[in-house]
Amino acid sequence: MYRPEIKVLDCTIRDGGLINDFKFEDKFVRAVYAACSAAGVDYIELGYQASKTSFDPNKFGKTKFCEDDYLREIIDGIPSNSKISTMIDIGRVELDQIKQKKDSVVDMIRVACYVKDIDKAIFHVKACADKGYETTVNIMAISTALMPDLEEGLRQLAESPVKAVYVVDSYGALFSEQIHFLVEKSKTILNPKGIEVGIHCHNNQQLGFANTIEAIRKGANYLDGTIFGIGRGPGNCPLELLLAFLKNPKFKLDPILDIIEKEMLPLRDKIEWGYIIPYMITGILNQHPRSAIALRASKDKDKYAQFYRSFMNDAELA
Amino acid sequence: MYRPEIKVLDCTIRDGGLINDFKFEDKFVRAVYAACSAAGVDYIELGYQASKTSFDPNKFGKTKFCEDDYLREIIDGIPSNSKISTMIDIGRVELDQIKQKKDSVVDMIRVACYVKDIDKAIFHVKACADKGYETTVNIMAISTALMPDLEEGLRQLAESPVKAVYVVDSYGALFSEQIHFLVEKSKTILNPKGIEVGIHCHNNQQLGFANTIEAIRKGANYLDGTIFGIGRGPGNCPLELLLAFLKNPKFKLDPILDIIEKEMLPLRDKIEWGYIIPYMITGILNQHPRSAIALRASKDKDKYAQFYRSFMNDAELA
Repeated sequence: MYRPEIKVLDCTIRDGGLINDFKFEDKFVRAVYAACSAAGVDYIELGYQASKTSFDPNKFGKTKFCEDDYLREIIDGIPSNSKISTMIDIGRVELDQIKQKKDSVVDMIRVACYVKDIDKAIFHVKACADKGYETTVNIMAISTALMPDLEEGLRQLAESPVKAVYVVDSYGALFSEQIHFLVEKSKTILNPKGIEVGIHCHNNQQLGFANTIEAIRKGANYLDGTIFGIGRGPGNCPLELLLAFLKNPKFKLDPILDIIEKEMLPLRDKIEWGYIIPYMITGILNQHPRSAIALRASKDKDKYAQFYRSFMNDAELA
Repeated sequence: MYRPEIKVLDCTIRDGGLINDFKFEDKFVRAVYAACSAAGVDYIELGYQASKTSFDPNKFGKTKFCEDDYLREIIDGIPSNSKISTMIDIGRVELDQIKQKKDSVVDMIRVACYVKDIDKAIFHVKACADKGYETTVNIMAISTALMPDLEEGLRQLAESPVKAVYVVDSYGALFSEQIHFLVEKSKTILNPKGIEVGIHCHNNQQLGFANTIEAIRKGANYLDGTIFGIGRGPGNCPLELLLAFLKNPKFKLDPILDIIEKEMLPLRDKIEWGYIIPYMITGILNQHPRSAIALRASKDKDKYAQFYRSFMNDAELA
């Protein structure tokens, strides 16, 4: 699938940081930046620009805050044609502390929000665009969005300076027909305004890569992946599968295979991600993974049937 | 996706046996049979009916041969409405030793073959059908089949007593568009004769479940899965994901979650399967996994980039 408009974004450090409170060693972050640069990845997301009043810097690693001095250390001396992105969360960022683009190594700022917060997201988009950044809005938990709300939000986004709007399957609940519908719906509203559609899939049902392909087929041009599929819980669309599928000659697979061998295998011995049944269960039930996260931290971490039945036995609401 | 014609076949014991030379303990085989029966799975495949002149019974476990006495011990006392299937390989079976259906607990015999061997497969199908069995033909490595050969084979199968013909993505190389094409092509030729299309996917690119869904959408009604995706190398479409997707009220998920917890987790500490990069590499290159199997048995088992380059550096043939 070769389409020159396609942009691949690696969010290994940002999404992977959700597992370990962003406590990656600098050496690891530099290795990811180097590998993705050598592989020809278009954007490399190095973390969040979170507020230090919302998050204690003693409890979270440096990629939670992505201060410019830190990012400059990370990329120092590494050859790269890739752009750098960071993510911001509504209510957990101090917009006035974000530098002007001309004073920063960051190229793109992505605003994560739920459908209900699209107005706020547009406010953040405008603030970042005014400072000179490319921007995206990433609509999380889109599998729970009500269609009138989503349509209204997309129409508002169509009038904003945003560069791309992402369909984010936070719960890993969607199947191909639903991906097709959501991408086509978004495209119809956004493309006439020159705004691209993006896709970010979680892997609860082993559909992260498959659903990314289905989004591509329907016209999504901003594609998220992570190396070896790292990400909280089930993880994400594996970058190596995505690059191999795309076949664009600008992408190289070797550097990603190399870092999997050297950095990701030892890391996976320390922190868990992948096909883990409690996350599969929240995925098939279209639920936030918080209950699976809690289960995995408890002594009942592998009591799968009991965990599943706990949802079946939920209080009736009819 | 509720369609009453859909039949689910669990091949945990048969496909999983490829990893450990079929040396499953009787207790494990009984647990799988009980779980699949309780889950409402239509067919449970308990192994191969291989020839003891082709395979040394001292080197392979009992599910390689599936003698009737053994199968009767396995199922003894377990409540079940499921049918039992076995697989035979052309050239590695002694047809005259297969009992009459009326004297056997086996209901269905599946003939595995490459496209070039479809004539032989039909000979085997007739022999088994004459003895009273349901039969299928499973066309392996279909991602390497040339279209005129495949079409000719499908037309011959359409005139045979076979019950279903499987598209088998042995190399885990296919994407949804190719699955759509192959299932539709098979259906067009086979359905008018009352023969169903089946799907059996390997998980090299994490597409086993996704491609099974795509085959269902195009009309495949015989669906293979294995518990927790067990199978040689990358494994197969996970049965638990498939049952959750199908939503047919006759299927129950609990018994499968329960056996994953109790039997599959400890088993996976002893034998490997799943998303393993060398098998991902043979998948993206549409290659037989033999080189990945050899690599995993060597000291270079995790030299991914080097393994990938060994294909890129292959002697040119132009």
